[in-house]
Amino acid sequence: MMHFRQGLWEEFFKGDRLACARLITAVENEPEALPEVLDKVIPAQKGGIRVGVTGPPGVGKSTVTAALARRAVQSGHAVGILAVDPTSPFSGGAFLGDRVRMQDLGDDHRVFIRSMASRGGHGGLSPATPYAADVLDAFGLDRIFIETVGVGQAELDVLDCSDLVVLILQPGTGDVIQALKAGITEAADLFLINKADLQGTETLLDSLRFLMDISPVRKGRPFPPILEASALLDKGMDAVSAEVERLIQDCVGSGRYREKRRSRLEQEIRSAIQRKLWDGYSMLAGADDAIRAAAEEMIEKSGSPYPYIRRACSRIRIQLAEERAGCDKKE
Amino acid sequence: MMHFRQGLWEEFFKGDRLACARLITAVENEPEALPEVLDKVIPAQKGGIRVGVTGPPGVGKSTVTAALARRAVQSGHAVGILAVDPTSPFSGGAFLGDRVRMQDLGDDHRVFIRSMASRGGHGGLSPATPYAADVLDAFGLDRIFIETVGVGQAELDVLDCSDLVVLILQPGTGDVIQALKAGITEAADLFLINKADLQGTETLLDSLRFLMDISPVRKGRPFPPILEASALLDKGMDAVSAEVERLIQDCVGSGRYREKRRSRLEQEIRSAIQRKLWDGYSMLAGADDAIRAAAEEMIEKSGSPYPYIRRACSRIRIQLAEERAGCDKKE
Repeated sequence: MMHFRQGLWEEFFKGDRLACARLITAVENEPEALPEVLDKVIPAQKGGIRVGVTGPPGVGKSTVTAALARRAVQSGHAVGILAVDPTSPFSGGAFLGDRVRMQDLGDDHRVFIRSMASRGGHGGLSPATPYAADVLDAFGLDRIFIETVGVGQAELDVLDCSDLVVLILQPGTGDVIQALKAGITEAADLFLINKADLQGTETLLDSLRFLMDISPVRKGRPFPPILEASALLDKGMDAVSAEVERLIQDCVGSGRYREKRRSRLEQEIRSAIQRKLWDGYSMLAGADDAIRAAAEEMIEKSGSPYPYIRRACSRIRIQLAEERAGCDKKE
Repeated sequence: MMHFRQGLWEEFFKGDRLACARLITAVENEPEALPEVLDKVIPAQKGGIRVGVTGPPGVGKSTVTAALARRAVQSGHAVGILAVDPTSPFSGGAFLGDRVRMQDLGDDHRVFIRSMASRGGHGGLSPATPYAADVLDAFGLDRIFIETVGVGQAELDVLDCSDLVVLILQPGTGDVIQALKAGITEAADLFLINKADLQGTETLLDSLRFLMDISPVRKGRPFPPILEASALLDKGMDAVSAEVERLIQDCVGSGRYREKRRSRLEQEIRSAIQRKLWDGYSMLAGADDAIRAAAEEMIEKSGSPYPYIRRACSRIRIQLAEERAGCDKKE
């Protein structure tokens, strides 16, 4: 019944990096393995914090992530990096120079770097990222950075899965407006103006403060801190790293971390039950073929799908079997 | 039982633009109205073609879209533009100059422009875009351009909903690699090198041809045409427009258009039944409260969600009631 070869879980829990990589590949590409993986890793989680690092392309997300990761390692943390951005140097994108700069991190055994590849022929950013973070957490990594380009629904979902979010902007671009409109400013816990040695930093600061003042979206939440740095020159990154640590302590202390974890668990339960409902229905109703035939007919006759949908739905009867007493204890 | 005020549907089918705008607002923000809207508009569709226009930020998507829209209008088509990119001048983003350039289109009664706003507090790009395209199709628009930034899952889903996709790149950037990695090249039916008056066009052409040669993803499909233009100077756009029309004829003639429509219908049916299954289960099981309580307990005891999931799933009994004879005819 087990999906993995014997010994893999032992190796994983002993800290074997290949075993960890194998499990992340599984949550990415082998949906049938997901229950086993989550069943093992969720109870083994040690409270690793997920820090989303996001911002427009070219703003220096990877350099900032690398700078934060180095400092976390120096403070004694075990660090994971998940690069959800296909152009990140962590995932082999971008330019050789960047990749070389990240090299020292990749060689450090206290850092586990993984790029979340696009999935299947479809090419979308991987929806498995939260599960990969679950695996890294159970692997004992307590600072998990998730780098994402922050445009689009999938990325916002990834941000939802982060315990806190650093939004990076740079001077001299209209990025702040784009970020505002995409709704990312609402999710941010820290604004970082990177490349703050460039012209336009004051203007960006002003417009950021102004735009956030008039923004209706942060109802009741405190205005996030705004910091300046130049990650490439490693200027100002000590302060950024310290602020991130402070935000992490606050997130844990205020109960927000616990709440986030609970809502991730709820989501996982809900999806699993939804899959089961559809599988059950689909088998009974031969749904795939029936729906295809119905769609064909609708095109032929220029019909609406709703009579079919109403009919199909009206036939559905769901019941819940009685729960057996003592069932709780057996599992 | 009707969601909309009396007379709205009559106005819509007579070509009233305000009624059309009202319906798009409904599919964006009023999920309870979706069945009524789709029930009316799907049978009324007239075969409008959805053309996705995508590419990295700053590449000139809106200018290209405007140039194509103008030519489509001149050839007698009724045109819709859906801007899914929050920075598009069509949606009020970007710079004033751009917006002014689009003005003449906005004043044309043969063109219906609509920006798909970010939704709710969440800020994601709107998943209602395919439904908005359904509305525009039933409104009688036969060329529907969907402008999207083409990064992330939601955008790829939008591309899936397009009958054909124009991918725009510009010289002097590493965009082609980014696009390749994000999987968009696979979905493209036409490559357009915009700003082809800039240096680097030859290099981009070469690398595009080379990269596509070695790309494993287009199994069996013909290599898409590559055109050059400068949309801002309106150079080369006649050829681009003609090629888009040729691709549209091919899409319709080859049966690919019909296939796309069928798969959109199938997806709609599947989602509706899935919603119904969850609602039915959720009501019976008091699922929201039960799942929240279970998640709380799991956190307290560091437990796995899977015993709960297995128990919940094992209790589910789905049956299908007999279909009443003649039921088909009544609806």
